[in-house]
Amino acid sequence: MTIVGLGAMGAALASAYVAAGHPTTVWNRSPEKAAPLVEQGAAHAPDIADAIAASPLTIACLTTYEATFAALEPAGAALAGRTLVTVNSGIPSGARAMADWATGHGARFLDGAIKNVPAAVGRADTLHYYSGDRALFDEHEATLRVIGGDTVHLGTEPDLAALYESAVGGTLLPALLGFFQGAALVTARGLEASTLVPYTTKWLEMISSVLPHLAAEIDRGSYDDPQSSIGIFHAGIADEAEVAAEAGLDGRWLEPMHALLERAVAEGRAEQSIAALVEVLRKPA
Amino acid sequence: MTIVGLGAMGAALASAYVAAGHPTTVWNRSPEKAAPLVEQGAAHAPDIADAIAASPLTIACLTTYEATFAALEPAGAALAGRTLVTVNSGIPSGARAMADWATGHGARFLDGAIKNVPAAVGRADTLHYYSGDRALFDEHEATLRVIGGDTVHLGTEPDLAALYESAVGGTLLPALLGFFQGAALVTARGLEASTLVPYTTKWLEMISSVLPHLAAEIDRGSYDDPQSSIGIFHAGIADEAEVAAEAGLDGRWLEPMHALLERAVAEGRAEQSIAALVEVLRKPA
Ligand SMILES: NC(=O)c1ccc[n+]([C@@H]2O[C@H](COP(=O)([O-])OP(=O)(O)OC[C@H]3O[C@@H](n4cnc5c(N)ncnc54)[C@H](OP(=O)(O)O)[C@@H]3O)[C@@H](O)[C@H]2O)c1
Ligand SMILES: NC(=O)c1ccc[n+]([C@@H]2O[C@H](COP(=O)([O-])OP(=O)(O)OC[C@H]3O[C@@H](n4cnc5c(N)ncnc54)[C@H](OP(=O)(O)O)[C@@H]3O)[C@@H](O)[C@H]2O)c1
Repeated sequence: MTIVGLGAMGAALASAYVAAGHPTTVWNRSPEKAAPLVEQGAAHAPDIADAIAASPLTIACLTTYEATFAALEPAGAALAGRTLVTVNSGIPSGARAMADWATGHGARFLDGAIKNVPAAVGRADTLHYYSGDRALFDEHEATLRVIGGDTVHLGTEPDLAALYESAVGGTLLPALLGFFQGAALVTARGLEASTLVPYTTKWLEMISSVLPHLAAEIDRGSYDDPQSSIGIFHAGIADEAEVAAEAGLDGRWLEPMHALLERAVAEGRAEQSIAALVEVLRKPA
Repeated sequence: MTIVGLGAMGAALASAYVAAGHPTTVWNRSPEKAAPLVEQGAAHAPDIADAIAASPLTIACLTTYEATFAALEPAGAALAGRTLVTVNSGIPSGARAMADWATGHGARFLDGAIKNVPAAVGRADTLHYYSGDRALFDEHEATLRVIGGDTVHLGTEPDLAALYESAVGGTLLPALLGFFQGAALVTARGLEASTLVPYTTKWLEMISSVLPHLAAEIDRGSYDDPQSSIGIFHAGIADEAEVAAEAGLDGRWLEPMHALLERAVAEGRAEQSIAALVEVLRKPA
């Protein structure tokens, strides 16, 4: 096993392979970051082509696809006949470009996405996505499971891991802002933000429990038997704005969400499921 | 027990009390909605003052505080010495006005908020908030537990139930829009929205797991030892916009969230925890 990139995440991956007894070679642009891994038992290859040549399988964990191109460029020839797995964050078009570049150099290629912090590497509840050549994934699945508890192959198109990372991860900032807005509301009254945590946790479980129904509505394209209607959400808009204003908070980040509800109502969707907002998102006004 | 309002939620509350063996009187503006409850064993009082007079405790479940004032106005005198609990959705100022009106008529008063659908009434995982007179809550807690599994008293100020309902519930629309955006992304590639559900569910669990840390940062007002920094989120902005654009989706509802990150970075908060966004929300630009 070769690990290219020894930032917070790459170092955690390398440690996990060393700890699991895999002969592990490491490379990093700033070579001093290899020292702790060498102490744990890894081999350090200061030259990137040597690092790639040292193992049949290389996992690259740099900041971006651009950084990965820059780091691997001098090792293009060494990739022929070897396997490259990239696990940086990035967008689908970046993953496609990476796949073209790697296979163009005769490598076999998988792209992956890591949905957790470095401290969670190898933990059973850690989810790692991969996409690309299915046979290649099957061949290396056991090895990949060393770093991800839950290790999933999403499909043969190499950009699906990046796509699902965006599609799933896109809930984070909006959900956190909803929580921060609530925290600002209760702290404006002298109450602690921590008092919200058990209720918000329960609320996020409730949200999870309605997702299967909402997803099924989206997949059928039929929104006429709603559990929660667009009209109900629309009726709450004024209250939400008033609560924020009463507490002197900036509620403007909610305005375009409210505008989406207005558009949905204007399109005659008030009696439809809230999942019909997908149709509005698909048609930029 | 008297239940005022037999919409979807009020009817579920009345059924639960009848089923639990409480002598139950019901009232609704449109009297025909009482018939199914009478069949189950409730008494119907067509006159609102008679309905209030029939029981020491009345739970009112109408659409809004305004509707509740309109319905109860003719029964003001009957309220003296009795207990009124309102469980409609609404904003803190509405709850305060309701408390003033009810106590002005000599009633004892609690405001409540129901965080689930009618089908969940009485289920163990159902959360009901109350606020107002603590002794009054203690006196009726066992009775209130018939309709809510988890029944919480938030504090003596009567508007706290409405405040927490807003503060917790405000996560719903942003989180759902995040999911719908993800659904639009994967369906644009011919994949089913349903394939996202297990991953988003796991992701929402991950979000819940970081809330205690974020809330503690907010309560301390100290953001300098972040698990996730504002800079990391800020660095992802361009990718998010590009992914939406590549799929031809409307990503504009994300723009003001991105503007909050820009403001935070401009204020020198790039190295601070993402929880420092609370400070930005507290100071409208
Ligand atoms: N940390 C997390 O919580 C987390 C969670 C999930 C996913 N990820 C993803 O994992 C990837 C790595 O994250 P990280 O936390 O390990 O980042 P990090 O600690 O900032 O490390 C970045 C790594 O990239 C290298 N690098 C950057 N530009 C380079 C270039 N042009 N040429 C060669 N090497 C270059 C750095 O080398 P130097 O040491 O020489 O600077 C370093 O090894 C990112 O895509 C991140 O989104 C991270
Ligand atoms: N349904 C849910 O999933 C849910 C979940 C949590 C909280 N809630 C909250 O529970 C409350 C009731 O919701 P619901 O679903 O039961 O609503 P609903 O089915 O629409 O019923 C509304 C009730 O309010 C009455 N009403 C409205 N305006 C009135 C007026 N001016 N005078 C007298 N009665 C009036 C209606 O009487 P008529 O029958 O005569 O029209 C009916 O009894 C709302 O605040 C809602 O936000 C509902």
